[in-house]
Amino acid sequence: MTDPDILISEVGPRDGLQNIQTIMPTTDKKRWILAQVKAGVREIEVGSFVPAKLMPQLADTAELVEYCKQIEGLAIAALIPNYRGAVDAVASGVHKMSIPLSVSETHSQRNLKKTHTQMLDEIKSIADMVKSLPCHRRPHFEVGLSTAFGCSIEGAISEDKVVRLAERAMEAGCDEVGLSDTTGYGNPAQVKRLVRSVKKVVGEQNLTGVHLHNTYGLGLANVIAALEEGITTLDSSLGGLGGCPAAPGASGNIVTEDLVFMLEAMGLTTGIDLSLLLGVRDILSEALPNECLYGFTPNAGLPKGFHGI
Amino acid sequence: MTDPDILISEVGPRDGLQNIQTIMPTTDKKRWILAQVKAGVREIEVGSFVPAKLMPQLADTAELVEYCKQIEGLAIAALIPNYRGAVDAVASGVHKMSIPLSVSETHSQRNLKKTHTQMLDEIKSIADMVKSLPCHRRPHFEVGLSTAFGCSIEGAISEDKVVRLAERAMEAGCDEVGLSDTTGYGNPAQVKRLVRSVKKVVGEQNLTGVHLHNTYGLGLANVIAALEEGITTLDSSLGGLGGCPAAPGASGNIVTEDLVFMLEAMGLTTGIDLSLLLGVRDILSEALPNECLYGFTPNAGLPKGFHGI
Repeated sequence: MTDPDILISEVGPRDGLQNIQTIMPTTDKKRWILAQVKAGVREIEVGSFVPAKLMPQLADTAELVEYCKQIEGLAIAALIPNYRGAVDAVASGVHKMSIPLSVSETHSQRNLKKTHTQMLDEIKSIADMVKSLPCHRRPHFEVGLSTAFGCSIEGAISEDKVVRLAERAMEAGCDEVGLSDTTGYGNPAQVKRLVRSVKKVVGEQNLTGVHLHNTYGLGLANVIAALEEGITTLDSSLGGLGGCPAAPGASGNIVTEDLVFMLEAMGLTTGIDLSLLLGVRDILSEALPNECLYGFTPNAGLPKGFHGI
Repeated sequence: MTDPDILISEVGPRDGLQNIQTIMPTTDKKRWILAQVKAGVREIEVGSFVPAKLMPQLADTAELVEYCKQIEGLAIAALIPNYRGAVDAVASGVHKMSIPLSVSETHSQRNLKKTHTQMLDEIKSIADMVKSLPCHRRPHFEVGLSTAFGCSIEGAISEDKVVRLAERAMEAGCDEVGLSDTTGYGNPAQVKRLVRSVKKVVGEQNLTGVHLHNTYGLGLANVIAALEEGITTLDSSLGGLGGCPAAPGASGNIVTEDLVFMLEAMGLTTGIDLSLLLGVRDILSEALPNECLYGFTPNAGLPKGFHGI
């Protein structure tokens, strides 16, 4: 089996579920994850190692990681807010962990109660801890530069600031940085510029992924910009879970179904069977009957002629 | 006043309204058009010169053209299905008229009951008629190559066929060709290839516009591809009118609000005041209370920091 051109990292079980009120039962999460792996998804962010009282929706993260270790070929990812979370994540046996470093310091202080300097210290401690582990227990450690394309508190974010923080995160010892459009403010011109500038400083191989939201409907346009700058890992969420078309400021991730459709239509391989993937949506609809699901491809149906249909 | 970088051609009063059942009262159409011009829109396709019995939604096209001639700075566009429609369009005094030439011959025969050869003869007759007019009465005559990116009856459409038909349309004497993604099957890689190939044959200046639908949510991604190939005129519809999120095969045009947001955020000028444009949506909601309106920007609200907000 050759690697697909693009790695889709499904973040719905983490980013989608953390942004809705409903707590999805663990058994439904397991069905969702398994079905999505069967459709060909190779990386899933299953949860976040945050205190259960802060985010009850993700309280079963360790249990999910344990479950996922039985699924062959799946890279298990999780979010961590701090050193304590990293220790728990390592203990659980995740393959990849990401910490958000908000470029908007105001957002960082509100979200994780830390300044940039404090966050970079935390990142260094985590990186040192990871490096002290025997190779087979070392997860890939990524720093996700959140609010990199704009902040709903600070407004515009200076691109120089993103570049400098990316550099400092690498110096602190993480394996890779990612760019997160937390607010969905990003536009294609900005995505191109920023990916290029950050790569120039951290090196081509140390920025491979972007995490985009679809708040302004620009998510897939931003993907095109990212692809043109050599990005190969794309975060997305089944049904764009986490936003709602009826709610002001809806901010779901880009929709996995539409993303896979676009990439495959362009002739890029994802390893994902789109017909099977569309079927996984039923699990979400059943388990979360009151949540809005986004996506055009599910309504439109696959086009005549698509992959021999 | 300098020309904006990008010309947005609002097609909602034609393409949006022809795809819904409700007949919008002429007075509401006039309010819509006027409000949109006040927001800075410089070209509007106000209707189609088809027999009223075939498309009662657009029966007031001549009256709308008459009304629009009083609005300074507005380029008035209309669709024409055939020579007869072209005569009526010229009599009304439109500034621009477009005839759809479907690259899928099956679709052409179902839609306009004509083969490619018959359509090209019709185009030649129209072009000859236009050229016989005194300069000040000559509308710009465009051939829109519809189903250029795929057909829901024939499936995939050969790119060679699009290129050859574009060439023949120019030979028949039209002023310009356009590429229409009638079905929304197009993807960004295909848009880039096809714009490039057609331009190579018809000349850079004879393909300036694309008409995109958002059936698979790829509309704005396709815009990015088109911009990179030098396209400067983009058709779109306020509220993506003409499709419905709840309906299978929903196929509204790309949403004017989101398109303007994306272009302006990228630093491209459209001449449109986005806050005013968002207000025009109320006219649609009031006049068409049972129709679905698309768009992310209207729900999300303009981002903090956008154009000084």
